[in-house]
Amino acid sequence: MTFVLGIDGGGTSCRAALATADGAILGRAKAGAANIRSDLTGARTNIVEAARQAFLAAGEDPDLIPQTPAVLGLAGANVGTYKQQLEAILPFSRSSVETDAEIALEGAVGSGDGAMAILGTGTAYMVRKNGKSRPIGGWGFQVGDQGSGARIGRDLLEQTLLAYDGVREPSPLTAEMMGVFRNNPQDVVEFTTNAKPGDFGGFAPKVFDYAAKGDAVATWIVDKAVADVEASLGVLGLEAGDPLCLLGGLAPLYAPRLSERHRALLKTPLDDALGGAVRMAVRMFAAPVEAAR
Amino acid sequence: MTFVLGIDGGGTSCRAALATADGAILGRAKAGAANIRSDLTGARTNIVEAARQAFLAAGEDPDLIPQTPAVLGLAGANVGTYKQQLEAILPFSRSSVETDAEIALEGAVGSGDGAMAILGTGTAYMVRKNGKSRPIGGWGFQVGDQGSGARIGRDLLEQTLLAYDGVREPSPLTAEMMGVFRNNPQDVVEFTTNAKPGDFGGFAPKVFDYAAKGDAVATWIVDKAVADVEASLGVLGLEAGDPLCLLGGLAPLYAPRLSERHRALLKTPLDDALGGAVRMAVRMFAAPVEAAR
Repeated sequence: MTFVLGIDGGGTSCRAALATADGAILGRAKAGAANIRSDLTGARTNIVEAARQAFLAAGEDPDLIPQTPAVLGLAGANVGTYKQQLEAILPFSRSSVETDAEIALEGAVGSGDGAMAILGTGTAYMVRKNGKSRPIGGWGFQVGDQGSGARIGRDLLEQTLLAYDGVREPSPLTAEMMGVFRNNPQDVVEFTTNAKPGDFGGFAPKVFDYAAKGDAVATWIVDKAVADVEASLGVLGLEAGDPLCLLGGLAPLYAPRLSERHRALLKTPLDDALGGAVRMAVRMFAAPVEAAR
Repeated sequence: MTFVLGIDGGGTSCRAALATADGAILGRAKAGAANIRSDLTGARTNIVEAARQAFLAAGEDPDLIPQTPAVLGLAGANVGTYKQQLEAILPFSRSSVETDAEIALEGAVGSGDGAMAILGTGTAYMVRKNGKSRPIGGWGFQVGDQGSGARIGRDLLEQTLLAYDGVREPSPLTAEMMGVFRNNPQDVVEFTTNAKPGDFGGFAPKVFDYAAKGDAVATWIVDKAVADVEASLGVLGLEAGDPLCLLGGLAPLYAPRLSERHRALLKTPLDDALGGAVRMAVRMFAAPVEAAR
């Protein structure tokens, strides 16, 4: 075995990295979506195409694909039998399909124990203790993802309408929001009817901005979000010395607001999720070879 | 003028009542949806059909429609120019298009001052002071309708998943809910992906049931919902003697939990929304004739 492949696949695109058996990345490439829940064969096609292109980007021969092992991190890999179904039809010498969270954690903290919090449009957590991973949260916008950008934006629109009705005190932020919607609450409702989590999440940075300036409604929303994130971090069972990485667009906004206990554990991520897939491929498929040298 | 018409139109059906000039209902009928926002001409067709059938049910001649005034209560009548557009194409001698809330309030408290709270799958409020109505809330499931069945059901699923993750203490209710979803949080997420407000709201009576038995999670959810309803009632500016009617499926569950101040104002509704439309038609179109007698 000369090479390993790392694959990071998601609903919008699929990235691949070709690396040497000791993890040095030689080439990267990108192909279409790899959504194993809605289109398994389409996902396979894009995964193989990304792998092929990574070989070409590295100046290597894609005909080596059947001799190359791969670790794939894919959203939804923990649901039903998608993992087994996909592994059965992949062309790599060996394939290990993991969740997207699993490769992100490996990228962030490496192969040892540690934890990550993904704080973006959604929120999700994963902790690894004695080599065993445990996911927390990530149940989506409607009934989960507390502290996410989507939930913060949704909270803001809710509080804006309550202020409009006089049920809560307005603030500079709710006044600005009513302006955004032409002072027409019906326009807010219209927006929310078709808004995707990312649309709600677009308002989150503004909420953090206003909270920093002391806006009462923004402060209320951010305080609640921080408490929700702290509650989830609390069940990870982290001890002094365990690395904790914050990922996602809201990570830098949350970091200074966390409790001292959790701030003390914060570490810069070692690598991104694609790098995590490569690291895991080296660990799973190449490490014994290394050890035998 | 011999008759008046009351019309109560909504997204699923349109009801009509034919009454004498002093408000005695002679016949009732029902036709298809009257959704003025999505299908104005279709709404007109069903409104006229319901009116025609109401004449027939009363044993009267539908050819009298052009000589009969009507009050119509329709959802969305307060948005944009739908009201004016519809009034211009209706065949009645005179037409007054009101919101669904306006006719419900008239049905509940009559023509005087008073207020109503609609507490069902959604929540909405309306108060009338010195003859002037003011709506509160009713902004929908995503960013409004605090205390509604839909919000209570959504809260329950959220707390159930938090209990699953160990972020909050489980309770008998969250344990039962996990059983409903085969102990698979992914099934909960799947449910929420396509659930309509009514689907979430289906869990609300169970939450009230468990709260009555002291379940900690149910109590937490209901306490929050009651506080939200109280906050909205609080801005209605009700004074001693103002009638307050609770409407909607959750009304009997909320009534005993309201503050003493609001419980003291509770009155049984005089009539339903269709009856309110008839009452309003008599008041607007027939009362001067009465007075001239």
